[in-house]
Amino acid sequence: MSIRIGIMGYGNLGRGIECAIRQNADMELAAVFTRRDPKDVHILTEGVKVYPAEAAADLRDEIDVLMLCGGSATDLPAQTPEYAKLFHVVDSFDTHARIPEHFAGVDAAAKESGHVALISVGWDPGLFSLNRLYANAILPEGSDYTFWGKGVSQGHSDAIRRVPGVKNAKQYTIPVDKALEAVRNGENPVLSTREKHIRECFVVAEEGADLKRIEQEIVTMPNYFADYDTTVHFISEEEFLRDHSAIPHGGFVIRSGQTGWEGENKHIIEYSLKLDSNPEFTASVLVAYARAAARLAAEGQSGCKTVFDIAPAYLSSKSGEELRKQLL
Amino acid sequence: MSIRIGIMGYGNLGRGIECAIRQNADMELAAVFTRRDPKDVHILTEGVKVYPAEAAADLRDEIDVLMLCGGSATDLPAQTPEYAKLFHVVDSFDTHARIPEHFAGVDAAAKESGHVALISVGWDPGLFSLNRLYANAILPEGSDYTFWGKGVSQGHSDAIRRVPGVKNAKQYTIPVDKALEAVRNGENPVLSTREKHIRECFVVAEEGADLKRIEQEIVTMPNYFADYDTTVHFISEEEFLRDHSAIPHGGFVIRSGQTGWEGENKHIIEYSLKLDSNPEFTASVLVAYARAAARLAAEGQSGCKTVFDIAPAYLSSKSGEELRKQLL
Repeated sequence: MSIRIGIMGYGNLGRGIECAIRQNADMELAAVFTRRDPKDVHILTEGVKVYPAEAAADLRDEIDVLMLCGGSATDLPAQTPEYAKLFHVVDSFDTHARIPEHFAGVDAAAKESGHVALISVGWDPGLFSLNRLYANAILPEGSDYTFWGKGVSQGHSDAIRRVPGVKNAKQYTIPVDKALEAVRNGENPVLSTREKHIRECFVVAEEGADLKRIEQEIVTMPNYFADYDTTVHFISEEEFLRDHSAIPHGGFVIRSGQTGWEGENKHIIEYSLKLDSNPEFTASVLVAYARAAARLAAEGQSGCKTVFDIAPAYLSSKSGEELRKQLL
Repeated sequence: MSIRIGIMGYGNLGRGIECAIRQNADMELAAVFTRRDPKDVHILTEGVKVYPAEAAADLRDEIDVLMLCGGSATDLPAQTPEYAKLFHVVDSFDTHARIPEHFAGVDAAAKESGHVALISVGWDPGLFSLNRLYANAILPEGSDYTFWGKGVSQGHSDAIRRVPGVKNAKQYTIPVDKALEAVRNGENPVLSTREKHIRECFVVAEEGADLKRIEQEIVTMPNYFADYDTTVHFISEEEFLRDHSAIPHGGFVIRSGQTGWEGENKHIIEYSLKLDSNPEFTASVLVAYARAAARLAAEGQSGCKTVFDIAPAYLSSKSGEELRKQLL
């Protein structure tokens, strides 16, 4: 029997989940829930209905795992504990500093109601976290490095759009090649913020706007750009739509460590992602973990869990025997 | 309380385990067992004894996890089921094609005696397998690529040493850059054996040997070299000892897949290792999984398991709370 998935919130992530379900023969989309008027939400899957968010509780018996696609700032801190009372849930909560607090709230709700809740699933937190854990456990003596990009930072793009005179903007975070190479060479460099990433901005200005002033406001913006080498390119709206509509991202997790009686041998463990579509890839991770959630639930487990708590075999549709034969 | 580790077999891998234990504060070396005369085996850890292999059973109560460091061809198929009757064990069985059979034998022994047995731990099988599984579960539509090297192939070095007139030899397996780049670019190439790896050999010949004949015998050797572009360098014994005494290795696991309603977005997941010492790194993986074995045993679990069955958190000495705060 298929795992029946519900999607709460139909933006880029929700749509990515819909696409990912189509690639997994053991899953089906059961329902999409939205805070908008359902009539205005057009999904891709034929024969599946869009419901108002409030209708979710009534559809409990038709959904095995509910995917929560809200934002980490305000949506998920309320939604995940709330829906964990009714459903097995998966979220992509990504505010690293607030994970312990989010975990505690979700765990209480999920344990009380007997549901499985997987939080902070995606690639960072998520796959990058897994690689940090594995690499640290294997090489206890060493240094960790995480680089992001090349990719679009939504938060930084938004910050640029708030500058007066800016009509549209996209910001790319790019790792500094020299820093990456030093890490890969086992040099264990101590890297400042400026030495790790550069920021490249593509800006469509309002007609007649003072470009010098806009550029100055961007590159000196505290927290967002002041600590980085930032480049600003002014481009036409046409060029913007043609070349900067995608949402690529990616990055690198590297551990550089040593072994031997006196630490005489060096080792580099590197994990990297190069993604054409950040939301679709994140959605694909969430869907694999939805399979794990359904299986843990079937075993009678409950409570809040993260990627650290899930044995890899739970993510795959293959049996243990198939996995050992084909992938081990 | 520390996890007390026993080492069965003190070659490169056993010595690597001894070194790795020293890097993990929650572990201690309890005993080393050898099939040689214990008097001839000199270990690094002060105050720890070397015993004959047959003494292992008598030391059952002093060892939490026994690490089996024999070879995959003949040692482990017999040793792992045998010792799983007496101990929680970890092995690095690496004959991919015979894993299902090895699993079955070990599982029966471990279940009957109530022990945990982790098999095929290391980096391939092991970490590479994990990355194949994660990447396949996340991107069900795509292609897998594994490249090995640059590194020393023990089997191929041995094969060269069997050629008459060869005194010593070392063979390096090297991924072909062009093939790696094509995979990273998402071209999904179909690669022949020759297109993926080249083989470079450093050979010390006996005095007066016919070098042309040796070279010819190497490059045309079926299974080992005939299907590859192979280079043979004749060097002096002095140069051999100076430049080719290390045992480096590594490699790349890459999955190239697509997402989207029509598979319109491409993604590359890449995992790579660059290792100064293959046996020491493998040993470090084994030791992290020994921690998992001890914890599973403490939970009352039993039977044969692989890296696929172990939740990542079990590998780390940190608590779930610490992991979520520091690494998620």
